[in-house]
Amino acid sequence: MINIKTINVGLLGIGTVGGGTFKVLQRNAAEISRRAGCPIHISVVADRNLALIQEVTGGTCRMTDDAFSVVADPEVDVVIELIGGYGVAKDLVMAAIAHGKHVVTANKALLAVHGNEIFAAAQAKGVIVAFEAAVAGGIPIIKAVREGLAANRIEWIAGIINGTTNFILSEMRDKGLSFATVLKEAQRLGYAEADPTFDVEGVDAAHKITLLASMAFGMPVQFDKAHIEGISTLQATDIEYAEQLGYRIKLLGITKRTAEGVELRVHPTLIPTKRLIANVEGAMNAVLVQGDAVGSTLYYGKGAGAEPTASAVIADLVDISRMHTAAQENRVPHLAFQADQLVGLPILSIDEVVTSYYLRLRVQDKSGVLAEITRILAEANVSIDAMIQKEPSEGEEQADLVLLTHQTREKNINAVIAQIEALAVVDGKVVKLRMETLG
Amino acid sequence: MINIKTINVGLLGIGTVGGGTFKVLQRNAAEISRRAGCPIHISVVADRNLALIQEVTGGTCRMTDDAFSVVADPEVDVVIELIGGYGVAKDLVMAAIAHGKHVVTANKALLAVHGNEIFAAAQAKGVIVAFEAAVAGGIPIIKAVREGLAANRIEWIAGIINGTTNFILSEMRDKGLSFATVLKEAQRLGYAEADPTFDVEGVDAAHKITLLASMAFGMPVQFDKAHIEGISTLQATDIEYAEQLGYRIKLLGITKRTAEGVELRVHPTLIPTKRLIANVEGAMNAVLVQGDAVGSTLYYGKGAGAEPTASAVIADLVDISRMHTAAQENRVPHLAFQADQLVGLPILSIDEVVTSYYLRLRVQDKSGVLAEITRILAEANVSIDAMIQKEPSEGEEQADLVLLTHQTREKNINAVIAQIEALAVVDGKVVKLRMETLG
Repeated sequence: MINIKTINVGLLGIGTVGGGTFKVLQRNAAEISRRAGCPIHISVVADRNLALIQEVTGGTCRMTDDAFSVVADPEVDVVIELIGGYGVAKDLVMAAIAHGKHVVTANKALLAVHGNEIFAAAQAKGVIVAFEAAVAGGIPIIKAVREGLAANRIEWIAGIINGTTNFILSEMRDKGLSFATVLKEAQRLGYAEADPTFDVEGVDAAHKITLLASMAFGMPVQFDKAHIEGISTLQATDIEYAEQLGYRIKLLGITKRTAEGVELRVHPTLIPTKRLIANVEGAMNAVLVQGDAVGSTLYYGKGAGAEPTASAVIADLVDISRMHTAAQENRVPHLAFQADQLVGLPILSIDEVVTSYYLRLRVQDKSGVLAEITRILAEANVSIDAMIQKEPSEGEEQADLVLLTHQTREKNINAVIAQIEALAVVDGKVVKLRMETLG
Repeated sequence: MINIKTINVGLLGIGTVGGGTFKVLQRNAAEISRRAGCPIHISVVADRNLALIQEVTGGTCRMTDDAFSVVADPEVDVVIELIGGYGVAKDLVMAAIAHGKHVVTANKALLAVHGNEIFAAAQAKGVIVAFEAAVAGGIPIIKAVREGLAANRIEWIAGIINGTTNFILSEMRDKGLSFATVLKEAQRLGYAEADPTFDVEGVDAAHKITLLASMAFGMPVQFDKAHIEGISTLQATDIEYAEQLGYRIKLLGITKRTAEGVELRVHPTLIPTKRLIANVEGAMNAVLVQGDAVGSTLYYGKGAGAEPTASAVIADLVDISRMHTAAQENRVPHLAFQADQLVGLPILSIDEVVTSYYLRLRVQDKSGVLAEITRILAEANVSIDAMIQKEPSEGEEQADLVLLTHQTREKNINAVIAQIEALAVVDGKVVKLRMETLG
């Protein structure tokens, strides 16, 4: 049955995702209300660019350049925040909550940094803050983790959750090009922004894995504890050696529950090529979740773009159209666990993380070099899984030595690397990359 | 906040999945209630084998061999039906609904065949029938289609939704063995049942794609209209030729919306090897969903087994613990669309389906043979995408000719095949397989 009662939406920001949301809601209005049981109507749009609102909406709804009037508008049931950033977006979300509005947002930065404050305010006011679009675009990964896998003790999550860096890594591998060259191409194609820092340095992925970690393990968001490394210093050489050893390099967001605490980290990672997630190419996203009952499940799709992100925003609107009539304690909790059931699990320092490593060394082509290096590894109880020893190129006296180690603790491998770098037969710094079997 | 009110469950059947459900609920009781906001407790278990109940539960709940007493039990809020089949399971589900109990079931056969009657009864009585475990085991694919992708006009779904056949196909390809040989191995390993008909003939996959089709397009279940072909006649030769052409053969459940009606079919299908879903191996499941806004999304995981299936059963219990307090019209509808908003879309006969084809012919090694065959194809407007022409083996006068066609209508290709088979230079029947680019 389709109710007469319409869900009235105030949309903040009519840029790429806002425009996509407007268009999809309009195009699929009939099917969406056949599902939701009520019409979902954008009644007012706020943007500094009024001409753009007019262009996108064709004047089918009220428009304003004053977003604060929308969050206070008595006609509005739900506010969609698509402005982004931590500044005015935060004030608007907090004001919307204070006015008793439900909120839908795609703003991972805001929630990863200020989520605890925002969710607490929403809880106190009895409103919902929905954010499916904040992680992996159109892939319903938050719904999967929060609801679909509710039976499970989740053990770890590993995700390709930044399309820009995955596009760059795919191109670097396919074409053997450098990071800088591919970044320029990505900027030209619109896959990377003019200032790509947040993407290429791993900050965006860290925002997203921070949110997933809290939902997986039932803890407050702790973005400031995340270990973050991007791909800007990654060499094409290492992508090639990894390939020879049967691995792909992906920028993964990883969170893992251990006896000592929770690992929360973003860095370039070697993954066995035979894993499905290693074959996620271009700007696509994929998230692998390991639960104790279900085993491994993987979720794949477009992680960005106007309509894929709109898909997630509108799914949240439909959910709110159902849940706003349910008693608050029966709603899906913001971070998967009931607000008073969150536990302050410690995030481990990167020094305490246990994983496997890829090491690349520049060594002199003399007898005894390998013996010296393997002695250092053996004394630190680091065992070697695989190795590539190159002949020096014509006219050179040094060659590359590549090692894959078995699992060890990060501080242990760092001590090993310091010893190796101090050897006279080793030139320059050791390149260290982390490796996950995801088995 | 964790409520004092417990959700009391009556479990029908303590076999593999029932036992798994009991164990996971017990093992993860604390995390599950931290999510659900209330404890979920199995208060009574029914099974003909009382000793098995005792063994699995350790006597922690009431037990009975009378399942009908459970569905009428005033203490029970939710009935989990894990008996299977269309017989007593149907009577029990209908009786549970009549007694005002919510129902969770993993029974795809029951719902694909009697779903319309069951959902109508549930709707009339105001109870929920949840069935995440009925399709693709622990993968939350029903939640994704029904809720996560609610913004989308879904265009098609294609899934590897039967682990037994995917295991057999993976082994046939890896080892070059025949269907019969691998089936025996699968039976020995427990991947195939003693009577494997439902799996290998595609009936189980057809049950599941029938349910997905209804949720994707908002129509009643129409299992009797599904076109079903299994893998029992598939030759290892065709798997090998497909591989040479860059394709894998998978048993896919496919449903597609067209202007004339809905395609609903299960058959062995060539898929480009580069697609992620082509690389889903062994007993794993994966479902690819194409939505107009989100594009392609893929969901991957274990499609069967005690705990993966239990994961889905318990996710449904948690959902019910939330939704049973919501007004009925706000609940997630059984078939994704509100009950009175389902539309009687026609299912197309297989003759009307448009796809691409793989044809394998045994032809005499004479000049002019290829010209004759290509003339027949050209006259029927079937264009050729790729071809393998083999030399005859030593001492033979016939050779294999393999053709991939571009898209055409099934009745058109059947007419072409009849003409080709009538040629004097062609020996025996033409092998026809369907091909999907899933692009």
